Parts: sequence; structure tokens; C-alpha cells
Amino acid sequence: WQRREVELLTLNELPAETRDGKRIVLKANIEVPEETESAIAHGAEGIGLYRSEFLFLQPGGYSSEDVQYDAYARVLKAMAPYGEVTIRTLDVGGDKVIPGMAGLDEKNPILGWRAVRFCLSRKDLFRTQLRAMLRASVHGRLRIMFPMISGIEELENVLALLDECRQQLREESIPFAEDIPVGIMIEVPSAALTADILARKVDFFSIGTNDLIQYTIAVDRGNEKIAYLYEPFHPGVLRLLKRIIEDAHNAGIPVAMCGEVAGDPYAAVILLGFGLDVFSMSSFGIPEVKKIIRSVSMSEAEELVGTIMEMKSYKEIDSYVRSWMNERFDLAVT
Amino acid sequence: WQRREVELLTLNELPAETRDGKRIVLKANIEVPEETESAIAHGAEGIGLYRSEFLFLQPGGYSSEDVQYDAYARVLKAMAPYGEVTIRTLDVGGDKVIPGMAGLDEKNPILGWRAVRFCLSRKDLFRTQLRAMLRASVHGRLRIMFPMISGIEELENVLALLDECRQQLREESIPFAEDIPVGIMIEVPSAALTADILARKVDFFSIGTNDLIQYTIAVDRGNEKIAYLYEPFHPGVLRLLKRIIEDAHNAGIPVAMCGEVAGDPYAAVILLGFGLDVFSMSSFGIPEVKKIIRSVSMSEAEELVGTIMEMKSYKEIDSYVRSWMNERFDLAVT
Ligand SMILES: [Mg+2]
Ligand SMILES: [Mg+2]
Repeated sequence: WQRREVELLTLNELPAETRDGKRIVLKANIEVPEETESAIAHGAEGIGLYRSEFLFLQPGGYSSEDVQYDAYARVLKAMAPYGEVTIRTLDVGGDKVIPGMAGLDEKNPILGWRAVRFCLSRKDLFRTQLRAMLRASVHGRLRIMFPMISGIEELENVLALLDECRQQLREESIPFAEDIPVGIMIEVPSAALTADILARKVDFFSIGTNDLIQYTIAVDRGNEKIAYLYEPFHPGVLRLLKRIIEDAHNAGIPVAMCGEVAGDPYAAVILLGFGLDVFSMSSFGIPEVKKIIRSVSMSEAEELVGTIMEMKSYKEIDSYVRSWMNERFDLAVT
Repeated sequence: WQRREVELLTLNELPAETRDGKRIVLKANIEVPEETESAIAHGAEGIGLYRSEFLFLQPGGYSSEDVQYDAYARVLKAMAPYGEVTIRTLDVGGDKVIPGMAGLDEKNPILGWRAVRFCLSRKDLFRTQLRAMLRASVHGRLRIMFPMISGIEELENVLALLDECRQQLREESIPFAEDIPVGIMIEVPSAALTADILARKVDFFSIGTNDLIQYTIAVDRGNEKIAYLYEPFHPGVLRLLKRIIEDAHNAGIPVAMCGEVAGDPYAAVILLGFGLDVFSMSSFGIPEVKKIIRSVSMSEAEELVGTIMEMKSYKEIDSYVRSWMNERFDLAVT
């Protein structure tokens, strides 16, 4: 195992490039600034998902604008030589319960008052976070990402609030970067189904597979009685992923993925074949996915996708992909 | 109001036919056999959804095969001169909690152990219901409908169980109709997204809009904090509805709708334009929807659909449809 780890880490200096020269970007998901070091050590070319929930889980209540600013600035500074940092606005609710905030006393929290839904009803708190992000933007390459967007009205509401915060800072003569890319997570089926419309309003997409799969198959994967239905390779899910990426590219914006599927070695070639631009995952997963990407060509990946998209069932796709991958790679996980 | 009711009831003898001659079928949703009379009185040409949950909510536990048989036979006999009766297999769970069965102690019951998911894990109970339905089939025109199908494996499992019950009855020399149409509800996005695949295995679809919309927009409409997001005219929802109907027609099967949208006068012309074959709703809603269908042409309906499908937001679509309908009809509800 140790030799394997060493071998994978030596990949750090090499780009995530397919054999026929398609350059992919691999980024890390982090939860706290302390993880930035590990991201760099594993070859991350940026932070694809900086989860901000930790800053709202403090014993004394949520962090002030200054405390948030410090955390964001710290990550932005550390990553500046390596790449962009995508900070996701507060994604509370669902299975992420924060005492005194969303996710409590709801019958179906996953379908409930969460993420931007919660933040838009608590604009005080939302503004504080957006101001802290904007202020931190002078220290590196910030991208702002909104979770759980379900339609264009909601998107317009969060964009308007962000503009309001920019205006406030201008009036207070507080500097911030003017060119911050703003994107959304695609994790609600209605957003996926209108990706062509949403793509024209933002600078990037990041697909959140965990929630997208839960909603698409109507399954709470935390419910052991029916967790078997959570199938990342369900043909309905794959069709949605393909469509999101096509719609984004038609609108000229790149697509990242930051859900667990992005770090699953068995999914890597499929995602390549769909045209995914950025894979963001736990730092430890980066070397293995990079190795896979460097071992295949886009034409192979597109051929694999062409084959599985003709298949009718999850089982058929899953077993075909597993044997296709196992024939070519010695994968550590199953 | 009374005059209006009388006027609508006189429509009973007239077919639900558009001005340019497209024949639509209007059916009723019922919960107990006693409602059959009202269905007939309001001009229903069949029962599009006979909810069987009532038979499982009895004080002494769920009903025996014979008690279920009696209830099903009663509805089938009464409706025989008017049309088919679509019985839905037990749709427990979600917001339909039956003591001792599914829906309790789940964190997200709407995304949980419900309908066929529950029934496939309680095959004793599922077989009892399927046998009762098959036995009742000799008394009228039965159609069997499975709720919450999410993919082809699940569909194959329920079809295999139904075949097993048929085989049992043959061995016991108990008669049943050999040509019972079997269909599924399309209410899980993954089923909608693979409607082309599923359509080849069944005789009809019935779209369940309530759940389909909840999953597609990731909203529990019973949660007042976010119920505003439940938007039947969300462009993502409309695209899904259009696609389900097209896929079904390409496979040569008809599509019904039995969710609340089917009985919403404001949605009627859109559904016509999508090519929906059967509208199933609460009996009381039938005359009004029939009146609308008889007042428009398919070309008008298709033109309306063509216009709204170019629109980018729920609000834009909703206000356009409402004024389009209000210009033409004096609608009782808003
Ligand atoms: Mg999420
Ligand atoms: Mg339902």
C-alpha cells in the first residue's frame, strides 16, 4: 500500500491530461482552512469546494464577518499560487443540522428549508457571509458558489443580494475583486432540466451528485431500508449528467463536479467521456483519479460513454463499467 | 353557482372532444367504492386512480384477500358499463402513514420506504393484494397500476411478482382476466428520464404530478417554509411532462395523469397541447375540464405550449397561462 501511495504522490508534478492531450483540472474539497496544505500536497490545482458550514457551527453561534473573512483569506492566500478557491455559501439544512438554524423539526429536511432557501430568508446572515467573501477576494482567486438553486427566480434573488453587498462595500470604500466568477451547484433536478437557461446567468456549474441522485431517484441514501436504490450509474442519472454538461458547454461555461461521484475512480472515465472539465474531491483521491485520466484517451472515454448510454438498466451499466475499469486499472477501492 | 353546476352537469352526455375532433378521456380518482356513483354522475369514463390505501387502514389491520376482492369487484361491476378501473397497488409511506407499516420513524419519509419499495419487502401483503385484484378482474375492466417505480429493475421485480400470482391462481383454478393492462405511475424523476425504456415494458403510464414536482424541485410541499417553491409550471417540470408523453407515444402507449395538475383548469390546455390522453381527477372537477377541452382546438393548445416552452421562468409562464385562460374562460377557481 505504501509503495502505491508514494507512486501516486509522484504524479503531483504531472498534469491531469488524457493520452490524447485533453487537459482536465483536479481540485480538492475542503471543510476547514487547515486542509489546504493536504490539498496542495496531493496536487490539487485549486479548491473546488470550500464548505463554509464549519464557520456557522461555532459554540458561540455563527462567526462574525471578520472571523469569516480571516478564514476565507487564509485559504485564498495559501492557494493563490496553485489555483482558484470556490467557496460555497452556507449549505445548512438537509442532513446538515446547525442548532438554532435550519434542518430541525422538518418532516422531510432533505426536501426542506436548506441552503439558499434558508439564506434568502435570513438575509442578515447571508449578507454577512457574502461581504466576508467579497472582502477576502483581494487575497487570491475567489469563486463564489450557491448551493441548491432550483430555478431562475431563486438564482436572480441571490445574484441581486450579491450585487447589493458589492454596492455596500463600494460605498464603504472596502476593496474587493471586481471579476469574481459566480456559479451554482446543480443538484436539484429542476435546475439540471433547465441548465441551458441557468447557464446564461452564471460563470460556472458544479454538479452536486449526492443530492442530485437522491432527488432524481427519490431516495434518502441515509435510510438503510431503501439505500440500495441510490445508484450513481442509473441511466436516468447519467442522462441528466450528460445533459447538464452539454447545456453548459453550449452556453460557453465550464462544469465541475464536487459530489462523491467525482472522486470515484470507477466513474472517472465516464465523466471524462461526458466532457466534465473539473473534478473536485477529497485530496486523497486526487492521485488515483489523475492516474486514470493520464492512462486513457478522450476517444476511449467517449466510446465507453457511447456504449453505456445505450444500456437500459443500472445493473447492466454498473457491471459493464466495473469490468471495463478492472481490465485496465488496478483500483484500490471497489 | 348552482346554475353553473347544473350547466356543467348537462355536459355529461357530451364527449370530451376538442373543437378539431381530438377525443380525450376524463376519468375519476376515488378512494372508496362508495365514490363510484359520484364518478358516474359527473361523467367519468372510468376510474383513473382507485387508491387502495383505505383497505389497509382498517382498525383490525389490513383487509384480507376476500375483503379486498369484494371492494375491487364492487367498483369494477359498477363501472363496467362506463369504462376501465385502474387500481393502484398499496401506496403507503411518504405522507401516507399506516400504523404498523411504512412511513414511521423515517427522517425523510417522502424519499423513503414507500409504495412498491415497501411492498417488495412485504411480499406476503403484496401478493394478497395482487391476487385480490386478479380475482376481481372477471367483474369488469381492470387495469393494475404500480406507484413509485424508479427504474427498470424495480419494474421487472413487480411484474415478476404479478406473474407469480397469476400462476398461483391458475394452479388453484381460480379465474381471472388474461388481458389486464398493467401500467406504472411516473412520479420519480429517474422514471421520467427513462420513460422510453420503461414504456416498452408496460401498457400505460399515469403521471403523478404531486410527487413528481416535489422530487423535481426538491420541495416538500407540506413544509410551509418552502412550499412556495412547489411550481407545477416550472419550466423543468413542463419539460419533463412533455418528454414523458412523447416517449410513451413513441412506444405506442397512452398517458394518463392522476395528480392534482390533471384537475387544475389552468393546466388543462397545456396538457392537451402536450398530447395527454387521459385526465383523471376528483369527480367534481370533470365537468369544468370537459368544458375547457370542448372549447379549444388542438392547434390552439399546441400553439400555447409552443409559446410557453420558450419561456425561461415559472413566473413568466404562470402569468401568461393565467391570462390566456382568463381571456377565454370564466374559471371558478384560481
Ligand atoms: Mg447538496
Ligand atoms: Mg405518489
